[in-house]
Amino acid sequence: MRSSPVGLHRVAEPPGVLPQAAERLDTDPRVHDDEVRVRVERLNLDAASYRQLHTKHGGDPDRIRAEVAEIIETRGKMHNPVTGSGGMLIGVVDEVGPRSPLGLRPGMRVATLVSLTLTPLKITDGLVRWDGRSEQVPAEGHAILFARSIAAELPADLPPELSLAVLDVCGAPALTSRVVASYAAPTVAVLGAAGKSGSLSLAAARRAGAKRTVGVVPNETEAGRLRASGLADEVVLADARDPIALAEAVGGTGADVTVVCVDVPGCEHGAILATASGGTVIFFSMATSFSAAALGAEGLAADVTMLIGNGYVPGHAELALDLLRAEPSLRKIFEDRVETE
Amino acid sequence: MRSSPVGLHRVAEPPGVLPQAAERLDTDPRVHDDEVRVRVERLNLDAASYRQLHTKHGGDPDRIRAEVAEIIETRGKMHNPVTGSGGMLIGVVDEVGPRSPLGLRPGMRVATLVSLTLTPLKITDGLVRWDGRSEQVPAEGHAILFARSIAAELPADLPPELSLAVLDVCGAPALTSRVVASYAAPTVAVLGAAGKSGSLSLAAARRAGAKRTVGVVPNETEAGRLRASGLADEVVLADARDPIALAEAVGGTGADVTVVCVDVPGCEHGAILATASGGTVIFFSMATSFSAAALGAEGLAADVTMLIGNGYVPGHAELALDLLRAEPSLRKIFEDRVETE
Repeated sequence: MRSSPVGLHRVAEPPGVLPQAAERLDTDPRVHDDEVRVRVERLNLDAASYRQLHTKHGGDPDRIRAEVAEIIETRGKMHNPVTGSGGMLIGVVDEVGPRSPLGLRPGMRVATLVSLTLTPLKITDGLVRWDGRSEQVPAEGHAILFARSIAAELPADLPPELSLAVLDVCGAPALTSRVVASYAAPTVAVLGAAGKSGSLSLAAARRAGAKRTVGVVPNETEAGRLRASGLADEVVLADARDPIALAEAVGGTGADVTVVCVDVPGCEHGAILATASGGTVIFFSMATSFSAAALGAEGLAADVTMLIGNGYVPGHAELALDLLRAEPSLRKIFEDRVETE
Repeated sequence: MRSSPVGLHRVAEPPGVLPQAAERLDTDPRVHDDEVRVRVERLNLDAASYRQLHTKHGGDPDRIRAEVAEIIETRGKMHNPVTGSGGMLIGVVDEVGPRSPLGLRPGMRVATLVSLTLTPLKITDGLVRWDGRSEQVPAEGHAILFARSIAAELPADLPPELSLAVLDVCGAPALTSRVVASYAAPTVAVLGAAGKSGSLSLAAARRAGAKRTVGVVPNETEAGRLRASGLADEVVLADARDPIALAEAVGGTGADVTVVCVDVPGCEHGAILATASGGTVIFFSMATSFSAAALGAEGLAADVTMLIGNGYVPGHAELALDLLRAEPSLRKIFEDRVETE
């Protein structure tokens, strides 16, 4: 079978669907011309997936480990059937097909930036080195990358956990950067500005030409952290679910670009009301409701462009890692977050 | 209390929320400086709302009528608490506050383009003239428009039902037009192209400079209707929920602009896969899943801009009505749809 850039040839069942929608993938270690095989070192399970398994098994590490191993063996991928989520993996490039466009070479240490829910994965050690107590899963085996997969080389100058934390959210600063650069000297408001995607987006906005950046945080602890970083021109306290309070906190006629990085439901109307006419709202939160955003903007007669935060923008990994290297205060926020996780 | 452009001063409870989120609105007929009062002639209930009431009451028209009257009396607005939806209304402008920016004059016959879920509404005839058998509700009473509400004058040269059908979806052609005009001679694919928002979007795309328009329809009946209209350069049959089939039907490297007007879930991955790198997907369907779109684009490493279809774009009503007047074949599609509804 000819290989497909999106991996159709690896779909074992049902036929004709994309790998993410597949019940089971083919994990054959022989690579097609445009594929790459990676020797797996570690899986990072999606937090929601691990939480579900932890709850289901009452925290019993042996039962959690057994179920993860069974999911991977049965489905040929780590795709939690309940949460629908996967995670990412770290490994070393083993073999690169002659027509692979990914720019990888054998021996490179990489993180995959596409979800495990669509990555063919075979585990050979039964996950025996995993204690079952966290999302970090040491593992032996192999994974397959397609022509349209994405993987980033882990930089030698940064601790791997730090790189991973950055790569996990690297779509946000890249898209923020692109949107901010399309305005002339805009005001940019970031909701959830002291978090990982929020602080990266703030740094990206300033570098892309924002005239004024406003970091919105929910409490004094986060405000203190953000003020100390100097990443925002202004730090304001507001509940992003309260449209009136949020619009007042952002002030003036609203932001030209509003970036939503708060992972709680109900922030759509506030984000719209806090945005100036002709402005853009970028929704990165997975808790965003499509209909609340669409109907909210219509109900407010708000002429704002509303973007679904696409996690992929060409060059996103490099841009995010460069920001971390250039901004010591951004790095500190990430180091603190990685430590407490 | 000072009046607010978004109607905060009309929120009776709970205080501090936007009118759409309010439990109850104040329907006092005295207008504030920036408000407009409309004498109501007819309500058009949202289809999902009417269907829910019809099912709940086993189709009994008296019970349906009683519940609608009670909702309006209790909440001060027609906001179905189960479906969360409202509808729109037709009426005649009664009084215009001296600072109203809406450009309305007493005596104008208008349709409100903001949802009934945020419009203060008082009914005085108990809906006695309504037979309870359709979404069209003859009614007497008054409604209040805020400074940021939107209303369009019903044109004298078109039957009111036709105008209403156009105004109901007028956000789609306006946003399509804006996006298409931002590309140089793009290919535009419209999913659900024989429907109301789809056919309007096709006509708008051509007028805004599309080089090639592709209308995607699910069956031969709709294909025949669309071919006869001549609105699309190409008419193709595909199930929009099947990503592979859809991408093949659109063909080439994909559309520069893909407009999703299909009101069924599961069209996100297909729309993304059918769109060229650097292209834009506009989601107008309320069945769109935010996370399916965000994760789908990331999983496909697709550099596409994804827009939440905002129902409000300045000038949207005029643009849509002008398209209908200019394109006899578009008008025919609407006349056929209005007749069978």
